[in-house]
Amino acid sequence: MLTDRLIKKIQETRAPIVVGLDPRLEQIPSYIKEEIFAKQGRTPQAVADIFFKFNKGIIDEVCDIVPVVKPQIAMYEQYGPAGIECYLRTIEYAQSKRIFVIGDIKRGDIASTAEAYSAGHIGRLIDVGENHNYATANYITINPYMGYDSVEPYLADCKAHDKGLFILVKTSNAGSKDIQDLILQNGRPLYAHVGELVSKWGETFIGEMGYSSICAVVGATHPEEAVELRKIMPHTFFLVPGYGTQGGSGKDLKGLWDGEKYGAIVNSSRGITGAFQSGKFTTNEKEFALAAREAVLEMKKDLEAYM
Amino acid sequence: MLTDRLIKKIQETRAPIVVGLDPRLEQIPSYIKEEIFAKQGRTPQAVADIFFKFNKGIIDEVCDIVPVVKPQIAMYEQYGPAGIECYLRTIEYAQSKRIFVIGDIKRGDIASTAEAYSAGHIGRLIDVGENHNYATANYITINPYMGYDSVEPYLADCKAHDKGLFILVKTSNAGSKDIQDLILQNGRPLYAHVGELVSKWGETFIGEMGYSSICAVVGATHPEEAVELRKIMPHTFFLVPGYGTQGGSGKDLKGLWDGEKYGAIVNSSRGITGAFQSGKFTTNEKEFALAAREAVLEMKKDLEAYM
Repeated sequence: MLTDRLIKKIQETRAPIVVGLDPRLEQIPSYIKEEIFAKQGRTPQAVADIFFKFNKGIIDEVCDIVPVVKPQIAMYEQYGPAGIECYLRTIEYAQSKRIFVIGDIKRGDIASTAEAYSAGHIGRLIDVGENHNYATANYITINPYMGYDSVEPYLADCKAHDKGLFILVKTSNAGSKDIQDLILQNGRPLYAHVGELVSKWGETFIGEMGYSSICAVVGATHPEEAVELRKIMPHTFFLVPGYGTQGGSGKDLKGLWDGEKYGAIVNSSRGITGAFQSGKFTTNEKEFALAAREAVLEMKKDLEAYM
Repeated sequence: MLTDRLIKKIQETRAPIVVGLDPRLEQIPSYIKEEIFAKQGRTPQAVADIFFKFNKGIIDEVCDIVPVVKPQIAMYEQYGPAGIECYLRTIEYAQSKRIFVIGDIKRGDIASTAEAYSAGHIGRLIDVGENHNYATANYITINPYMGYDSVEPYLADCKAHDKGLFILVKTSNAGSKDIQDLILQNGRPLYAHVGELVSKWGETFIGEMGYSSICAVVGATHPEEAVELRKIMPHTFFLVPGYGTQGGSGKDLKGLWDGEKYGAIVNSSRGITGAFQSGKFTTNEKEFALAAREAVLEMKKDLEAYM
């Protein structure tokens, strides 16, 4: 099962780390932008090519030390067809380097609509020849607000193609309190109830290592809540956003690790891909990828201290 | 303000109807598929061209009698870059025929990610020349599970470009009970609380006709709940899915209309675009668009009886 393979990869790399690939033009070295804009003009295709060149640089430099990357589709999608092509090309390239990909798409819809999202992002297109299928992420992120029938359509593709989901339970942003923290009639917060649902939905996807391929997003900025959810969902693997730029640190994550230390993986995006701009690792933007590697190694040390 | 213009268009057409453009290959006349597949082979681009030809036929035939179309992006997105190009082309074509477009994207994310979705779907790309901007929908649908900071980033584009949002409050699917119907500590269901939030978030977007451009999705399959939400959200315009194929009828919608009858618009997708397959209006698939027109007129009659 997928999450078994992911955990083995985490054990190999000793890094429960996801590198978020959320490219933004202002965070890309100017020499890359200048070169491509000079050749192609300021077009969506040029931006897509700039993003890919940057992503490739990062992937090449970190693929031996991290198990997973997570492209955020919004950053690509805004540039239309060229952007989507870059998103798909990034997935394919990362997988060719033998790392897993979480497609951060946060889709949420039902019935034939969810089936279409599933086919495109983790399944197969049935209407076109096999050689017209795109690279698909190993996992995708999903929003549960519409209930079980917005999750169920993906499960068939998870089963058939050994894919997985990360379902939003408790997110790392301040506004997550507006809805996720509401107290229910039984005295418990909504996110705990959603956690129970996600745990139940994933029951038939639990692998040998004890974790399901139907996973949860649990923010690092709410340490006690993470501990609470860890207890409610002992077989659910967690993706933890909010490390670094959103304020979470290794210390906040203590409660997330279980006895065997493999129940969670922590995302950092700008903290890694923007490390060359931090002034900490290099003063040369041509070394953006090396700076990213340094930032991964530093993050690994921070996490190890608390695991 | 946008929702003023939408309501005027509803008054003109006397049809509070949204035609959902959710193309699926099995629901497209075979003569269209055969022609394009024969020329181009079974590729994602061919499917995209088939979808556009079908959409164009529908739009041409109904653009004088309905105010809005709603493409469901999942149906296009699954075909990758070519699919996204078809989605954007459909928006542009509908707007050229002077009808409004609701982009059914149900995105939900925060901060720079939400800004990227907003830029791509209702805003402007700042990094490329103006002539590289794509057509953008008038409204998009949004998922509120992540709270206010997953809504706030869109408001600047709504203001700057006269755009609007439809935020999920109570959806029409059976599984909506799993989360949206949970009873809070104060004895009220979650969807009522979300309704209040959406109403508050839209306060500064209320136009002359009394309705905000920050609107809500409220399913037709829960008549009493719709009445309850109508009272909680007197200035919120509703998009009502679930009519027809999901079981809702004009009778179920009674409580949605206010005194002046313009507070809601009802979506039908397959009930209209698949009307040629129903055997009710035609036996000739070449008349798929005429059948769609007949279905719109029939739906209009059904709604009028209860408005």
